[in-house]
Amino acid sequence: MNISRRLNQVPASPIRKLVPLADAAKKRGTHVIHLNIGDPDIETPRVMTDRLRQWQGGIPYAHSQGDAELIAALLKYYRGLGADYLKAENIQVTVGGSEALTMAMAAVADPGEEILVFEPFFPSYHSLAVVQGLKVVPVTTSIADGFHLPKLEQFEALVTPKTRAILLTNPNNPTGTVYRREEVDGLVELVRRKGLFLLADEVYREIVFDGQPSTSLLSYLKVEPDRLVILDSLSKRYSAPGLRLGMMVSLNQDLMAGGLRIAMARLSAGYIDQKAAAGLSQVSQADLAAVRDEHQRRRDVVFAGLKSIKGVTIHQPEGAFYCVVGLPVAEAERFCAWLLSDFSYHGATVMLAPMAGFYLTPGLGKQEVRWAYVVGETKLKQAIEIIGKALATYPESRY
Amino acid sequence: MNISRRLNQVPASPIRKLVPLADAAKKRGTHVIHLNIGDPDIETPRVMTDRLRQWQGGIPYAHSQGDAELIAALLKYYRGLGADYLKAENIQVTVGGSEALTMAMAAVADPGEEILVFEPFFPSYHSLAVVQGLKVVPVTTSIADGFHLPKLEQFEALVTPKTRAILLTNPNNPTGTVYRREEVDGLVELVRRKGLFLLADEVYREIVFDGQPSTSLLSYLKVEPDRLVILDSLSKRYSAPGLRLGMMVSLNQDLMAGGLRIAMARLSAGYIDQKAAAGLSQVSQADLAAVRDEHQRRRDVVFAGLKSIKGVTIHQPEGAFYCVVGLPVAEAERFCAWLLSDFSYHGATVMLAPMAGFYLTPGLGKQEVRWAYVVGETKLKQAIEIIGKALATYPESRY
Repeated sequence: MNISRRLNQVPASPIRKLVPLADAAKKRGTHVIHLNIGDPDIETPRVMTDRLRQWQGGIPYAHSQGDAELIAALLKYYRGLGADYLKAENIQVTVGGSEALTMAMAAVADPGEEILVFEPFFPSYHSLAVVQGLKVVPVTTSIADGFHLPKLEQFEALVTPKTRAILLTNPNNPTGTVYRREEVDGLVELVRRKGLFLLADEVYREIVFDGQPSTSLLSYLKVEPDRLVILDSLSKRYSAPGLRLGMMVSLNQDLMAGGLRIAMARLSAGYIDQKAAAGLSQVSQADLAAVRDEHQRRRDVVFAGLKSIKGVTIHQPEGAFYCVVGLPVAEAERFCAWLLSDFSYHGATVMLAPMAGFYLTPGLGKQEVRWAYVVGETKLKQAIEIIGKALATYPESRY
Repeated sequence: MNISRRLNQVPASPIRKLVPLADAAKKRGTHVIHLNIGDPDIETPRVMTDRLRQWQGGIPYAHSQGDAELIAALLKYYRGLGADYLKAENIQVTVGGSEALTMAMAAVADPGEEILVFEPFFPSYHSLAVVQGLKVVPVTTSIADGFHLPKLEQFEALVTPKTRAILLTNPNNPTGTVYRREEVDGLVELVRRKGLFLLADEVYREIVFDGQPSTSLLSYLKVEPDRLVILDSLSKRYSAPGLRLGMMVSLNQDLMAGGLRIAMARLSAGYIDQKAAAGLSQVSQADLAAVRDEHQRRRDVVFAGLKSIKGVTIHQPEGAFYCVVGLPVAEAERFCAWLLSDFSYHGATVMLAPMAGFYLTPGLGKQEVRWAYVVGETKLKQAIEIIGKALATYPESRY
């Protein structure tokens, strides 16, 4: 019995598909340092988990749009960033950033239509588009430019009559690039001129380093209310990725009303998660800045450490907690598998995400890995040492 | 800026769209008895909520397939029902029954293809199909037959080259019908002969009255391993609808592997929900039977009470906790709105779900409501009295 064509086309996640090898390594007693997945070892705010410990009553459905207490807390958060114009009706609570993405894709494009995405990109974009019969059209960015956007005239020819939206991840996963105001200005101008939507995935909004500003679409919504959609998530901001809560934020009334109709069809996001998350009203921007500073310290350790390994290329990340690392190997995926299956150093090894799955253009990213710096300084230094030893040992290493 | 065609086609939920009127009634001080939504006032097992009160640690991602402890508990549950052949790889944990449905639809059909569903049906089936570009083809069942299936030869002409699956809800929401073994036998034979999948939504599996048997696909999976998919949920079984956890269960390896790839793209179901739900390993079939008995007592109160109101037609439900009630009004939706906006009796009114939204065939269900008997005997009797008074008062009542 044949499954659907689209199901056959959904790729396995490059972030998760080596999990069986990691499990086998652990069974052999090898300690695996997980740098493959964006799950920082930073404590979730206790004002959230305290709400679990104080649980009273049952677990009823929440409102389809989202729990009123959580929406009030989110409004307070967004207004604190200057978006004083936002109302509850502009926020749809979703099951993680991934449902915000799915919902926004469904809202702006029909099967057979296209969305431009800057590559390399978070692989779920492509997978979730395939499930919906949409086509992701990649616009390649390069490590030589720090993965910043190409000039508009270099990619606006990719806009076809089937194009419905451009999707920007800012700050970027996997590159750590933070787009400058003039880059965002250019995209807003482009979607206006071409009649498109601009979707901005801003789940790493606060994690911007070196005192640089973050250019959120929050400062553009008022001037271009119909075309702009923010995709957001609580997972990274509050170091709680297993809390499956995100948001779709827009001033486009038809889009928000339609999003709510989809939300009704899936009934509600998790009630427990929402009640815990409402504690975010007690997490200040200063608290978030302290977390950002920890991520920056880790970035510094990783950048300095990896730079010193022979044959490794790395670009200094400007935000989020990832970097793209070029390795002196022919096939980074084979190297990542080998790290788990055949290598350990002082009883430990490292799990990384091969980058090929973050590109759609064939052949790109084959010698790159995504390094998520989601553990503390000591472990990061251990991981860097392991990778140095591994590259010196790996039979297929080019150095 | 136009939203997508499909978003425009997603209807609002008939179960939830009157919520603003209910909120307004509450603001006026009217007590609203909620019989519109399947959220029973039965206590969630404390072995689940105790796990919240004992929370330690953070909120990391779970495995994409599902938390190992939860999957072990689910295997124990299914094996207790005789499915001793099931393995972990046959279970995909989903974000509620709604994600199990979405995932199964994506797995079996491509945009433009069709799924047969017995009407009236749970409205999310249609909404979630529209989002995916699929077509739900209704097979009408009738209150005169207790909403049991028509003879195969009466609907197998609806199977076209575009048909990919038949979806059965057993026990049924909204009708409360429990399909007999010979009905399920017939469907299994039909999907074999026509080359289709059979999807069975069994979220009310244990709630079957009068000592009758429940005919789960669990007893068919082994004989037809490739064509059968069970959709399941913890919401109703454990009286915890805000716990957003469901399952897709199948022996079809390609389908389960593809489901896991979709699951990877959305990262994971809620970690907190899964850790709480793993407590289900301590909930026995006897515990579930006690809950079923309470639903049956409520069914008896509702059936006896409504039968005695002039002009009301009702069929005795065999399971779940809903019934379809014919009212002596021209437009049940207008009556439901009027109940919230213009009526109260001793300071209280009733919220019901108009049935038109549970049918796809135009004109059907206009004089019907779905009555969810999700509150205790005293409140149910109050609700019955309110409806009796309301029908006697309603200006457009036909009696």
